Amino acid sequence: MIRILGDNNSIFNQFIAELRDETVQKDSMRFRRNLERIGEIFAYEISKELDYSKKSVHTPLGIAEVPVIKQQPVLSTVLRAGLPLHQGLLNYFDKAENTFISAYRKYDGDGTFHIEFEYITGPIIDDKIVIISDPMLATGASMVLAYKAMLKKGNPKHTHIVSIIASNEGINYIKKNLPNKDITIWVGAVDQELTVKSYIVPGLGDAGDLAYGNKE
Amino acid sequence: MIRILGDNNSIFNQFIAELRDETVQKDSMRFRRNLERIGEIFAYEISKELDYSKKSVHTPLGIAEVPVIKQQPVLSTVLRAGLPLHQGLLNYFDKAENTFISAYRKYDGDGTFHIEFEYITGPIIDDKIVIISDPMLATGASMVLAYKAMLKKGNPKHTHIVSIIASNEGINYIKKNLPNKDITIWVGAVDQELTVKSYIVPGLGDAGDLAYGNKE
Amino acid sequence: MIRILGDNNSIFNQFIAELRDETVQKDSMRFRRNLERIGEIFAYEISKELDYSKKSVHTPLGIAEVPVIKQQPVLSTVLRAGLPLHQGLLNYFDKAENTFISAYRKYDGDGTFHIEFEYITGPIIDDKIVIISDPMLATGASMVLAYKAMLKKGNPKHTHIVSIIASNEGINYIKKNLPNKDITIWVGAVDQELTVKSYIVPGLGDAGDLAYGNKE
Amino acid sequence: MIRILGDNNSIFNQFIAELRDETVQKDSMRFRRNLERIGEIFAYEISKELDYSKKSVHTPLGIAEVPVIKQQPVLSTVLRAGLPLHQGLLNYFDKAENTFISAYRKYDGDGTFHIEFEYITGPIIDDKIVIISDPMLATGASMVLAYKAMLKKGNPKHTHIVSIIASNEGINYIKKNLPNKDITIWVGAVDQELTVKSYIVPGLGDAGDLAYGNKE
Repeated sequence: MIRILGDNNSIFNQFIAELRDETVQKDSMRFRRNLERIGEIFAYEISKELDYSKKSVHTPLGIAEVPVIKQQPVLSTVLRAGLPLHQGLLNYFDKAENTFISAYRKYDGDGTFHIEFEYITGPIIDDKIVIISDPMLATGASMVLAYKAMLKKGNPKHTHIVSIIASNEGINYIKKNLPNKDITIWVGAVDQELTVKSYIVPGLGDAGDLAYGNKE
Repeated sequence: MIRILGDNNSIFNQFIAELRDETVQKDSMRFRRNLERIGEIFAYEISKELDYSKKSVHTPLGIAEVPVIKQQPVLSTVLRAGLPLHQGLLNYFDKAENTFISAYRKYDGDGTFHIEFEYITGPIIDDKIVIISDPMLATGASMVLAYKAMLKKGNPKHTHIVSIIASNEGINYIKKNLPNKDITIWVGAVDQELTVKSYIVPGLGDAGDLAYGNKE
Repeated sequence: MIRILGDNNSIFNQFIAELRDETVQKDSMRFRRNLERIGEIFAYEISKELDYSKKSVHTPLGIAEVPVIKQQPVLSTVLRAGLPLHQGLLNYFDKAENTFISAYRKYDGDGTFHIEFEYITGPIIDDKIVIISDPMLATGASMVLAYKAMLKKGNPKHTHIVSIIASNEGINYIKKNLPNKDITIWVGAVDQELTVKSYIVPGLGDAGDLAYGNKE
Repeated sequence: MIRILGDNNSIFNQFIAELRDETVQKDSMRFRRNLERIGEIFAYEISKELDYSKKSVHTPLGIAEVPVIKQQPVLSTVLRAGLPLHQGLLNYFDKAENTFISAYRKYDGDGTFHIEFEYITGPIIDDKIVIISDPMLATGASMVLAYKAMLKKGNPKHTHIVSIIASNEGINYIKKNLPNKDITIWVGAVDQELTVKSYIVPGLGDAGDLAYGNKE
């Protein structure tokens, strides 16, 4: 299932507009803040699909029956670019457990290496609801690898994949490579083109560099 | 028109549950933070009803057509209890103009006084969209007075009234006293009872005291 | 006693530099954020002069003797310009009580009016430590009026007056008009000139307008 | 050089008191927020030791000579526990470059493994000022490994090591293993004991688990 939040206009699209704008991008604090606000809105929209139960709470003046979330989700993100988006999700799901996934270079015998994902840390996710976030969904390959790496920690009940800008190619890659999985894909906008170097066009550039500075 | 956001379950209801809970209320930082998060969600939902236009922005890799808000709203709040809720609205509508409304005691000749609302500050609001917030809508009398005081600054194109917890009485009072006005009322939850001292039951108590400490 | 925090260089001066810069001022979100960060730093520096007592707390691994603040201060601000600065102070003194002071126009018999300060809300301040904030200390007249209005609520043990940019004239006015009071004046920078319209030069312009938009 | 910020009482010690308190720890949002506020205060105190230059900025009313930071530091942190502390540092040094360091298990031929640090991402740090943070400095071994891993990216002009709670053993280990390095160690408090499992006592427990939930 795919939900494209930007298809209905809201302030969410204003934040994406600012993320894309190379003039506004010069302010990395605002760039990070926009990723965070977008994360909060994803959290809110995803929360509409969670289960709630009634609880009685004592107010200073009486007793109220209030709906509360039955089961906190696990917030999972791919470093480093995912951090501000994850922060936004955590701003709203403030009681959630968290998983941080990072890549490392695994050297093969012949001196070459390939990228492997390894959990740095995280809880067992069996029967839990997982929200896994990465700001860009370009080819979709990283997300599929991250998802599969995550399965070492158990089988989630449902996974919400969150990306701000996706390519059609990336979305299709996920559908093809994670069939029969209980997954909802949440994106902000879908861009049409993917360059040979796997950059989304028009996209926004490198989200990690724009949030945290260039890397070597 | 009335929109009750809490009628559909979301993390929004979790925040209201915490606001109501007299144990959680002991942490005034969390109380203020919940008012702020609720303000953000109101901002987002209201933003779905605003007008957008397309703008071309240069990304580092191309040109994107992005929807941006046509006209920034004016955020108006009633002091002091409205401040954290207003902060939440401003977190999202960060380019908005702002109006702060406060009450003062107008002494009558005979030594008695009545409450009058006076703008402290704010822009002309003719043909603008105004969002006016106060966490509790009890009798509705303060909101109607605040709304009318605001009209000294012009005639808004549309007004969104935002309250977290309302009584039916308060909602009806607004409908009755502001007929033929272009108004949308946004509330989080509607409680049934109103005490003789005009407190909403079960409600949450005095939002101003809980956010900022008791007043004399 | 006067403490000028900007006399020793720190990131605090960077924030003031941004506040003053008419190009950076175009981003009102950053303007408000800088007022807030400056408020946090004032809170931290003022907190060095408060009294602490030892308390035993249970950690998961043992018992620690930790210093905690003996008496929470009362945070008092002058609306509207003081709000983001006050928010910064409250970010650190998150358990403080709060007072909001606003002005209203008191009409005299002949149709003219003068400005009077009136508490909107606040606690009794007898024997308490009060931190009263207003971003600009121009002539000093508003601050003296606000201070005196505040005394209706009791006699504080000590008052910390906080302003980001002050004129020498404003500082001297306070010294002259509040003699024998237990007061510490905290400022970020002292500018030399005051225009006939009571604007500090070079100053930063109108802090309220820059934070919240022009007023009529 | 060692600076122990908690030796002089300030609100900083209040935040540490809350971090240590196993009752307050149940609120992971407040736990993270306290790490963040402590990071902000470290940023401010460290910023007093940076170099500044004068810059002319145009205010709306004149020209001001303002001190600004000559060279932005590189903020470097060890995952996952370091993230909220790093966020606090970044809240103030909002224009800084960032480095994220994570550990992975390097499998040796015989099936055993040891921990190696690898940059995930970061800039060249030659002649730059680096601030490297990790909330706990227990044995000091991780910090020394992280520091050495970082040197693959160049030789910093000066490094500020930031930890909230340290053991004497950890501080001595750094002094012994990083001699002749241009380093300032900043800590909040120094605790006396280190358990055989390398936990600081009384300490605060596992900062990563308290911020982000238990890991498998």
